[in-house]
Amino acid sequence: MRVAVGAKTILLAHGGGGKLMHDLLAEEVFPAFANPLLDERHDGAVLEVGGARVAFTTDSYVVRPYVFPGGDIGVLAVNGTVNDLAMCGARPLGISAAFILEEGFPLEAFRSVLASMRQAAAAAGVAVVTGDTKVVDHGKGDGIFVNTAGIGVVEHRFKIGPSSVRPEDAILLSGDLGRHGVTVLAAREGIEFETALASDTAPLHRAVLALLDAGIEIHCLRDLTRGGLAAALIEIAEVSGLALEIEEARIPVGDEVRGACEILGLDPIHVANEGRFVVFVPPPDADRALAVLAAHGSPGARPIGRAGGKHPGRLSLRTALGTLRLVDLPSGEQLPRIC
Amino acid sequence: MRVAVGAKTILLAHGGGGKLMHDLLAEEVFPAFANPLLDERHDGAVLEVGGARVAFTTDSYVVRPYVFPGGDIGVLAVNGTVNDLAMCGARPLGISAAFILEEGFPLEAFRSVLASMRQAAAAAGVAVVTGDTKVVDHGKGDGIFVNTAGIGVVEHRFKIGPSSVRPEDAILLSGDLGRHGVTVLAAREGIEFETALASDTAPLHRAVLALLDAGIEIHCLRDLTRGGLAAALIEIAEVSGLALEIEEARIPVGDEVRGACEILGLDPIHVANEGRFVVFVPPPDADRALAVLAAHGSPGARPIGRAGGKHPGRLSLRTALGTLRLVDLPSGEQLPRIC
Repeated sequence: MRVAVGAKTILLAHGGGGKLMHDLLAEEVFPAFANPLLDERHDGAVLEVGGARVAFTTDSYVVRPYVFPGGDIGVLAVNGTVNDLAMCGARPLGISAAFILEEGFPLEAFRSVLASMRQAAAAAGVAVVTGDTKVVDHGKGDGIFVNTAGIGVVEHRFKIGPSSVRPEDAILLSGDLGRHGVTVLAAREGIEFETALASDTAPLHRAVLALLDAGIEIHCLRDLTRGGLAAALIEIAEVSGLALEIEEARIPVGDEVRGACEILGLDPIHVANEGRFVVFVPPPDADRALAVLAAHGSPGARPIGRAGGKHPGRLSLRTALGTLRLVDLPSGEQLPRIC
Repeated sequence: MRVAVGAKTILLAHGGGGKLMHDLLAEEVFPAFANPLLDERHDGAVLEVGGARVAFTTDSYVVRPYVFPGGDIGVLAVNGTVNDLAMCGARPLGISAAFILEEGFPLEAFRSVLASMRQAAAAAGVAVVTGDTKVVDHGKGDGIFVNTAGIGVVEHRFKIGPSSVRPEDAILLSGDLGRHGVTVLAAREGIEFETALASDTAPLHRAVLALLDAGIEIHCLRDLTRGGLAAALIEIAEVSGLALEIEEARIPVGDEVRGACEILGLDPIHVANEGRFVVFVPPPDADRALAVLAAHGSPGARPIGRAGGKHPGRLSLRTALGTLRLVDLPSGEQLPRIC
């Protein structure tokens, strides 16, 4: 582990989705730009523009390796930004594509990433409308980094975000955990599985828009990327000030992912996903929401817990043995460069 | 020079603003995402969102060194995106800030960039509303890369862009050329000047909005970043299909920049600026536009040429000797990592 207390330089763990990243953002980045939109700590910002509500989001992608079973950095970038817009309850309208290429990166590989992005954008029904391409010297990058930003239109009346979570809200999870993180890590380390484990990367906006169309009262949405389910729920607990409780036995994890996590020493609730999200709804809406999710690409959606409990601002996990334990962000390096 | 004909890998010159970059975009990137907005090849896209016209743009910044006289990568990123919105005639509303940090980058240096960005955003009157932070392994980045995207609202009735340029339009230049490029190159190479040459980085939206407020009929705007005045006008000539002619004697270049360009073997019309732009207006509006520019931070604004001439789709320069020469993009590496 490279983590050192009081470190004065950037560490890999500052980007890993764990405690150091949380602290870097909380102590340095958010204070630097403090404003109400950023302080929401949501996946994107929603701004009023000439009477319309516009969602706006960005993410950079540095995943290593840049191609892995089930996708590549381009697919990830398109779906990731589509999903961040979806998590605002927005209909995606346009995304940007900005590349930082390393001198010596094969042109054929760049073409392949562009083709992946075009396919992913077409599949999600969103256009790449603006972009940028930069090149850095050999040894000053790592093949290809991609940034995508996106804008979408918010056509519902809700304020979706951590601060809208209410006591007793049901927490619904859209599917099984850990496929993306385990797949990328295995590809990086050269580990092979007996069956074809692949990233779960997928666009999520159609499921979210279907929930809204069905009149589900959505309080909060969050996709489970860097830091996984745990990081997402810990942040929502922190910002909302509410206790959140989830039940281990209700959290679906495939056998291959579970086996790989045991070998690699990972807990699936901390592992990154690229096609899974949680939605917070009032208890009366939960069953209907699950039915909508099942009908829109998430047959494995299920309730995993609720807002409320003994520890305000914290996430608790009820284990298979019935005991309750507080969940914290991992303090060290978890999965660097997973997205 | 590392440029090779038929090269199958990415070269530094693919990011330098010259012919190779032009070809990479024209042959690989634009076709991959072909759509009417992207095909405009403007600094940003303008989308209809719920009745509003929203401008959307992105740029990554990889400037080396990341601090230079007159600014740093953070100031450049904020002003650059504000300016790309301004070039759509948009009022900037919000920008994103996405960082790719290299393991080992000093935390103090990151703080300093964040502070610069905050100051630049405050000076431009725009908020940083969303963001992202990634970390890559030591040796896989170069300290800090920044991506900013931005959204703004378009409140005028014009379609501003290369395809709106009309024959006989006056080409107005907002100030002297080359300060940013020469400053960064000098900082990189350790060259010192007798006086304090500094980057011209500055937000340009107030000048543009003042032109619109004054009722100037703006046909096209373009800031003169990578590739400088020449690349901007060559692209506008290409997309509009019109000949453009400029007069060398009318193009202001400071003595220090001119001297440095002579030493470095550069032509100021190809050197990057970060606070200069051209505006295309009908001839009857030109004098009034110059007066507005002079009153809004551009006392050196002047007419440098017009749309029209013998070579459709091409840029021509009338030299001090009175001869006319076609201007092409430089074929090799010009100024890598200038922004």
